[in-house]
Parts: sequence; structure tokens; C-alpha cells
Amino acid sequence: MPKLIGEARAQALASLPEWREADGRDAIVRTFVFADFNQAFGFMTRVALAAEKMDHHPEWSNVYKTVEVTLATHDAGGLTEKDIALARLMDGFARSAPSP
Amino acid sequence: MPKLIGEARAQALASLPEWREADGRDAIVRTFVFADFNQAFGFMTRVALAAEKMDHHPEWSNVYKTVEVTLATHDAGGLTEKDIALARLMDGFARSAPSP
Repeated sequence: MPKLIGEARAQALASLPEWREADGRDAIVRTFVFADFNQAFGFMTRVALAAEKMDHHPEWSNVYKTVEVTLATHDAGGLTEKDIALARLMDGFARSAPSP
Repeated sequence: MPKLIGEARAQALASLPEWREADGRDAIVRTFVFADFNQAFGFMTRVALAAEKMDHHPEWSNVYKTVEVTLATHDAGGLTEKDIALARLMDGFARSAPSP
């Protein structure tokens, strides 16, 4: 799985307006805020099942109703299509959760 | 729930040898390493269910098979018996997971 570069990288990032590039490394980050811990951990559980199936896992932290996510592909040393796919999936799960 | 201080705090910490005091705040931290993501997230799920029941939640991050935990009681501005109870519970769940 090659690192995304050039126009392909730019297009992929443009398609994920809620994600931003990480500081100091080739990765993307997003902070999700849910209504409560139940919603936040429910989201994490849906993502965990999908991530395990994809064999591609997020780096993430959780404090009560907030989930901070960093996506990068370790083996590629940067951002790949796997990260874009996982970001899209997380966006979809988050959209289907009740608002904070 | 009052902050733990003095001898009670020292005894509580002595009973949790795998936890250390956080830098720069009144909290305790432990890093758990499991065999894989399945075990790590399984651990997190067991803790999440118990935490919700206790109405006391960890601050934590996960990268593949590693789970880093910080425990403190926000309302008390420091360490309380709730944190000690949650730490014990996490230690117990971790002991019952397969080794890395």
C-alpha cells in the first residue's frame, strides 16, 4: 500500500473536510464529540470491529464524550488509501450518532 | 468524594505497584500491553462497561495492542477512592487477559 502523494493525496484530503493534517508527521487527525460516554464508546466499538476486519487500526484517545483520532499507515510511514477509507467509515458512524 | 491525602493516599498507591503518579497533576497512570488489538480492545470494553456502571471513567489512549490509562477524579481535582477502585478493577481484567 503506497503512501498518498501529490494530486491523489490532495484530492483525498479535500474529500475529508473534517480531518486535518497532523503536526509533524504524515497523518490525519479528527476530534469527535458525542453526547456522552455511552455514545463515544459505542462509536469506538463500531470502529474497532471495522478496523479489525480491515486489519487497519486507529491511534485514538478517549476522555468521557470526546474521541481524538490519528490515522496513518505504519508500514508505509504515512498516509495511504487505508487511512482515507477508515476516516470515511468513522465519519459515517459519527453522523449516525446522536448530536452532543 | 474527597481527594486522597497523606497516609490514606500513600497506602492506596502502595497497594497499586503497577501504577505510577502522573507528571504535573494529581493522577495515576499505567500502560497495559496485550497480545494484539483484539485483546486490547476487549479489555477496554470490559473496563467501559464497569466504568459506566461506576459512573467514573478513565482517560485513555490506544495504539494497536497498547492501552495507556490516566485516572483522576475531575470533580475532586485529584485522586480519590473512585480512582483506586477503577485501577484495581483494570488490574484484575488485565491479569485475566492472555500475555503479549
